[in-house]
Amino acid sequence: MERTIANLKEMIRAGRGIIPADTVVKGGNLVNVMTSEIYPADVAIYKDMIAAVGDVSDYTGPGTKIIDAEGKYLVPGLIDGHIHSECSKLSITSFAKAVVPCGTTSMISGLDEYISVSGLEGLKEVLAEVKQSPLKVFWGAPYKTPYTIPESTVSFNFTKEVHEEVQQWPECFGVWETVREFLQEEDENTLGAIEQAFKNRLPVFGCAPMARGNDLNGYLCGGVRLDHESYDHEEVVEKMRKGMHMLIRESSVTHFLAENIRAVTEVNPYMARRVSFCTDDVTATDVLEKGHLDNVVRLAIAAGVEPMTAIQMGTINSAEAYRIDHLVGSISPGRIADILLVDSPEEFHVETVITNGQLVAQNKKLTYDLKAPERSTVLKSELKCQKTTKADFEYRVDMINGTADVLAMDVQGPFVRKRRDVVLNVEDGIILPDPEQDVALVSVLERFGRNGNRSLAFCSGWNLKRGAMASSAAPDDNNLIVMGVNPEDMSLAVNYLIEQGGGQVVVADGEIIEFLPLPVGGIASDEEPEVIAAQEKKLNKAAQDLGSTLPEPLMYMFFLPITAIPDYAITDVGPVDYTNLTTFDPVIKLNEQ
Amino acid sequence: MERTIANLKEMIRAGRGIIPADTVVKGGNLVNVMTSEIYPADVAIYKDMIAAVGDVSDYTGPGTKIIDAEGKYLVPGLIDGHIHSECSKLSITSFAKAVVPCGTTSMISGLDEYISVSGLEGLKEVLAEVKQSPLKVFWGAPYKTPYTIPESTVSFNFTKEVHEEVQQWPECFGVWETVREFLQEEDENTLGAIEQAFKNRLPVFGCAPMARGNDLNGYLCGGVRLDHESYDHEEVVEKMRKGMHMLIRESSVTHFLAENIRAVTEVNPYMARRVSFCTDDVTATDVLEKGHLDNVVRLAIAAGVEPMTAIQMGTINSAEAYRIDHLVGSISPGRIADILLVDSPEEFHVETVITNGQLVAQNKKLTYDLKAPERSTVLKSELKCQKTTKADFEYRVDMINGTADVLAMDVQGPFVRKRRDVVLNVEDGIILPDPEQDVALVSVLERFGRNGNRSLAFCSGWNLKRGAMASSAAPDDNNLIVMGVNPEDMSLAVNYLIEQGGGQVVVADGEIIEFLPLPVGGIASDEEPEVIAAQEKKLNKAAQDLGSTLPEPLMYMFFLPITAIPDYAITDVGPVDYTNLTTFDPVIKLNEQ
Repeated sequence: MERTIANLKEMIRAGRGIIPADTVVKGGNLVNVMTSEIYPADVAIYKDMIAAVGDVSDYTGPGTKIIDAEGKYLVPGLIDGHIHSECSKLSITSFAKAVVPCGTTSMISGLDEYISVSGLEGLKEVLAEVKQSPLKVFWGAPYKTPYTIPESTVSFNFTKEVHEEVQQWPECFGVWETVREFLQEEDENTLGAIEQAFKNRLPVFGCAPMARGNDLNGYLCGGVRLDHESYDHEEVVEKMRKGMHMLIRESSVTHFLAENIRAVTEVNPYMARRVSFCTDDVTATDVLEKGHLDNVVRLAIAAGVEPMTAIQMGTINSAEAYRIDHLVGSISPGRIADILLVDSPEEFHVETVITNGQLVAQNKKLTYDLKAPERSTVLKSELKCQKTTKADFEYRVDMINGTADVLAMDVQGPFVRKRRDVVLNVEDGIILPDPEQDVALVSVLERFGRNGNRSLAFCSGWNLKRGAMASSAAPDDNNLIVMGVNPEDMSLAVNYLIEQGGGQVVVADGEIIEFLPLPVGGIASDEEPEVIAAQEKKLNKAAQDLGSTLPEPLMYMFFLPITAIPDYAITDVGPVDYTNLTTFDPVIKLNEQ
Repeated sequence: MERTIANLKEMIRAGRGIIPADTVVKGGNLVNVMTSEIYPADVAIYKDMIAAVGDVSDYTGPGTKIIDAEGKYLVPGLIDGHIHSECSKLSITSFAKAVVPCGTTSMISGLDEYISVSGLEGLKEVLAEVKQSPLKVFWGAPYKTPYTIPESTVSFNFTKEVHEEVQQWPECFGVWETVREFLQEEDENTLGAIEQAFKNRLPVFGCAPMARGNDLNGYLCGGVRLDHESYDHEEVVEKMRKGMHMLIRESSVTHFLAENIRAVTEVNPYMARRVSFCTDDVTATDVLEKGHLDNVVRLAIAAGVEPMTAIQMGTINSAEAYRIDHLVGSISPGRIADILLVDSPEEFHVETVITNGQLVAQNKKLTYDLKAPERSTVLKSELKCQKTTKADFEYRVDMINGTADVLAMDVQGPFVRKRRDVVLNVEDGIILPDPEQDVALVSVLERFGRNGNRSLAFCSGWNLKRGAMASSAAPDDNNLIVMGVNPEDMSLAVNYLIEQGGGQVVVADGEIIEFLPLPVGGIASDEEPEVIAAQEKKLNKAAQDLGSTLPEPLMYMFFLPITAIPDYAITDVGPVDYTNLTTFDPVIKLNEQ
């Protein structure tokens, strides 16, 4: 319930037991994350709020529904401390269907992919969608968009002036994912967002992978107090000794938990109280197969963390870090009634999920039919870019024949791209990709009708032998990205996505092999998670059939435009050297024949 | 430094070591309250900010001042989690002189006594005074003024409309001391303040002495998440199990620490992480003799708390509870440079104090001459009430001679007043006070020129045998209170304070015995703490010479108008029955002779 004067009166009365509870959960064992105790306790729920915990016999009325917990353990709803749910390609509604049955009832998110494709109008629609879903989103306003240095193109530029407005919204709980380099570069919009946050007494969330020593000090002096991205546990330890709260990330592609948790299990168990969990990016397949935050809790227990401590990392620790512990993170009177029934703290299998006071999931399924809202034209996707031809993906140089020394961006993991120097043939004034050497072409096309930018560069690591693949979902800008060893197929892939209004496609020899439509802003779908998971598998299989040896060829591709990943990236303004924060010419030298 | 874009640039550069530090504290042992570790570390300070911690050799320039810590322990500045500094009768400037040398560098306060006498205009002057003092105040906006039920008179009514304005101020960090009964009574202004706080994502601070069971549940459902007042450790445990952060209060008159801390030392050591300290009300004498927060830390250690844990309770725990840990509470880069040099964590004697990056105190004294600001007419006191005569303090009834059964408010401790039925003589239509039976008269006079209210009732416990005493400082309304067994002396005491423009006075047999001027709003003084302490002693001695057996007769008197103290109180609208939240007639029955 919104805390209006009228509602507060009602809530106080319900808390006093003057209005009977709607629901009582009886016969459970409370996992009290506030005190690290487990003891039998009943819970009285009024509307979406926990009215009383303990002996709640005073709270039962004739209409009170009783849920028998049968000795199960009552755990607060889990909180994902940092996630771009859009990267799963599931809309909020579909994402809720996937993760709420796993026990995730809240997430901290910038909803930034939605903003990049649809601005504040789209964001408002998504926030309305959140309200009717069983999943809560505590929104952080992106520190700026685009996130890129040099600046690339998105549909909506999040500036310091925008912060002046949105930080006043009750939905805004801080500044989202403030990337270290923008502080170091003294970016006006980023610092303006921080200035506003201090004025509004809102926290600034961080993103500072591999920041150590003086770089880290400088970052902290910019006002950031938590981070979700450390490459090893020593980095975690340094950040925590310097006063940060650390979210350990276990995403579908970066499995950091087992290593990062050593900060707690090996270095200093006391640090546990300022550690929490996030998944950042997950795939539908992963969630359906392994679970979501519940899986992260299980992984932490398997890594040697006490079950109570692991549960705290998944609940109250995040809530405190984000200053939302008055709303979520514990089963306490006055908090929102997000309660999981779990088999045991050690095994941690979520059997029943109550969110906002309603029983919404059992046995890993929502118990009711959740429908996505009608999408307005704001969120309906239309790729506003020109159709392409083969020539658009031919890398032309000022030399007819010979060879070219080329810098190819070599993917060495989902979030590492290193320099790889290759020699490519030049024929008829065109540098040719070379499947034999594992060198493909990659291009990003601006798709919001703002300037028609197109870039072209070389990459390796995908091992594509033929064909092309493309995606209109490609964080953080979500311009159209296409990769291939055949300009004709690349053009076809792009043109097909334009015709379909967004999605992901694999093409070979002039034919569409697989296609996944993403009608919500060109980045997400309202389909069931199972459907998306199956289609994703088909897409990856198709890409692997083209020769790719990567586990998730499309996901590795769609992270290429993120400039915060060392050492190279590509956006609509060109290939980017992350170390120098400039675009670069991939052609090092032309060697005339 | 205020976090403006320009300042942030400078701070980031200082953090990176590009601008050299102003000061480096070398050779100390860092008490890292974030990780519960102690290890050697140097600290680089730039202006008022900690730029780096650890090896700071990169941060030293030719102009950098070096402070040699000589192996001492570096502890974050202490935070008083809940205090009305005004009750010490020391202005902010004088209070800083007393407590900063003890290591208190921040306090959470409503500055509510200033508001009750001078409104927002006076508050703004006090906030400006804070800025030029070495003591930081994190201000909570009083949930409403007056705090009383039934409503009494103050100079300024803090309403929900006022909250709409002041919660936007960057100085406002929450809603101050929201008393449980006002939630239970569904007071519109109180609930309006909470509504605004949720909208503005600000915390609601509480005050719920003796709240247990359903009463406590109802209170928590109103959105409060911390409390500073529990009468025993079982109350602490219940509140913490229900999700509250607990501040343990050790004031000059209520010594709760030794008992309350048993929640941690006997019941559950894990609770320590959500326990912190406050002093609420202190006297200058106490601070000068025992210390301030440093003394509370020592008391906790003496009660069996680990030194590291006790230090955390005095620093980071409060900072986290109040959501100001990005500013204070730890020695971490980016935080305000409030650093204490302490002999050892176990002994905890504060030897040197750095606040806002400046060395301000050594050996229990400020190292510089701190001057109070010029006081404008807003804060200069003028008691706007009519002079009185003896007749104003004669309790007249509709009977010439006989006896009266009277309810006297019997003080049984500073914060407990119980019913005591007494039989008093009635002569010439006047109920007479009775020194033999320990029954005095007490009156509260509205002093803001709003309505001229005056109340009159009976009290006991002071054992006054003759004379009277009066005070224009009397929380929370700070109307003029006078107590005595002689109406002539009572009138003289009141008139004298009106003439002097506020203060405290003891009168006997038509003569002024002792007087303490309180020119700042009639509640505080800019005198040195030592001067106030000496004058307070003289006042209490004078009151004791009148027969009083209480340790602090004037302080016990000046708490009488607080209606949140069970079971009785008196305000300008009359004597108040706390249980029924109504005024009452102290005359139970008249017995005609």
